Amino acid sequence: MLQLEHILGFIPEYLPYYQLALMHRSKLEEVEQNNERLEFLGDAVLGAIVAEYLFKRYPNQPEGYLTELRSRIVRRESLNNVAMRMGLQKLVQYNNSDRGLSRSHIFGNALEALIGAVYLDKGFIKTRKFIIQQIIKPYIDIEHIESTDTNYKNQLLSWAQKKGHTLVFESIEEKTEGTRRVFTVGIVLNGEVIITGNGFNKKDAGQVAAQKAIEKLNIT
Amino acid sequence: MLQLEHILGFIPEYLPYYQLALMHRSKLEEVEQNNERLEFLGDAVLGAIVAEYLFKRYPNQPEGYLTELRSRIVRRESLNNVAMRMGLQKLVQYNNSDRGLSRSHIFGNALEALIGAVYLDKGFIKTRKFIIQQIIKPYIDIEHIESTDTNYKNQLLSWAQKKGHTLVFESIEEKTEGTRRVFTVGIVLNGEVIITGNGFNKKDAGQVAAQKAIEKLNIT
Repeated sequence: MLQLEHILGFIPEYLPYYQLALMHRSKLEEVEQNNERLEFLGDAVLGAIVAEYLFKRYPNQPEGYLTELRSRIVRRESLNNVAMRMGLQKLVQYNNSDRGLSRSHIFGNALEALIGAVYLDKGFIKTRKFIIQQIIKPYIDIEHIESTDTNYKNQLLSWAQKKGHTLVFESIEEKTEGTRRVFTVGIVLNGEVIITGNGFNKKDAGQVAAQKAIEKLNIT
Repeated sequence: MLQLEHILGFIPEYLPYYQLALMHRSKLEEVEQNNERLEFLGDAVLGAIVAEYLFKRYPNQPEGYLTELRSRIVRRESLNNVAMRMGLQKLVQYNNSDRGLSRSHIFGNALEALIGAVYLDKGFIKTRKFIIQQIIKPYIDIEHIESTDTNYKNQLLSWAQKKGHTLVFESIEEKTEGTRRVFTVGIVLNGEVIITGNGFNKKDAGQVAAQKAIEKLNIT
């Protein structure tokens, strides 16, 4: 309870929301009793609040910049990492003996569910405060996320060189989506397309593809 | 102005937000003066409010059901259609002579930007009311959207039969994403995979693929 209050930064009112948020499916399969519905809600609320936060923080950046930045802040790996640093692994109920579970995802998902619980318990304004004060400010280094913008491609290329792989970026498709051109760039590793990325220009598409490749290949 | 008030259901306070929301990029390229940033914000706010609406309306449906239903409600085609029926095409400023523009997308995007404007002007609670009272209730038939759930596959198969095409659903991949199995089903039209869909089971993946194929092939 004290740990939960410390994580939240306030005293929760209706406890069952929080108990549900911390209940992973591996513990109780029944949908009414696990946190997946709350995760759906929390994910959406988080997306809106981060969108507003970036919209106001970067008044001169175009939509594409905000979209990209947001997707990096709320993406699975980022949330897993934040959840672990918040100490959620001490509170989440899950089946320890299920060896097929990818643990860190459980905590990122539980963080989203916790946001859903806060929203139901305290409403939008308090949830915004919780997200900004307890999550973004202490755990998310937006300047750092911004500055790594153009480094995925280099990171991937230097990895390939070190390992003796041939790696090229290849333009695969250009199409019109709505009013915009969308570009698809593929990463060709030793002659085989291993992953693709999309963007509103080739540079962005290449970055997206490189970022996905780095995750897929577990390059650190 | 009267038309805008009619669409909003209230009297707007800070007009520049709304003027910006109705300004398409084809009219003014500069990012500070077109509606794309507001569209980013409005899209996120709409996603959160629809998520909460479905979460409360369907207390016993699992997360996957809510996710699917929401994605159909907020998807591009659906919003374009709603925007046209609301009469947004009479208010949006865009370049009439630009023949490369896909018109209907302009209005769906402007609807999202308008939601962003309402949010900045009036806050979250009023925006929720606007979305539920002025958009969802009059223009979105959720029961109908739900009932078309299982019909994409049949619709696609009967189209293929009528046209004399061979069409089969083929399981392409099964992988683990986080704690879950994700299935990819492809649609094979005359021997060629034309599109794929993902889902947490093969049935859902097939439906997603069928829905995408119907859009791609312009089947009505």
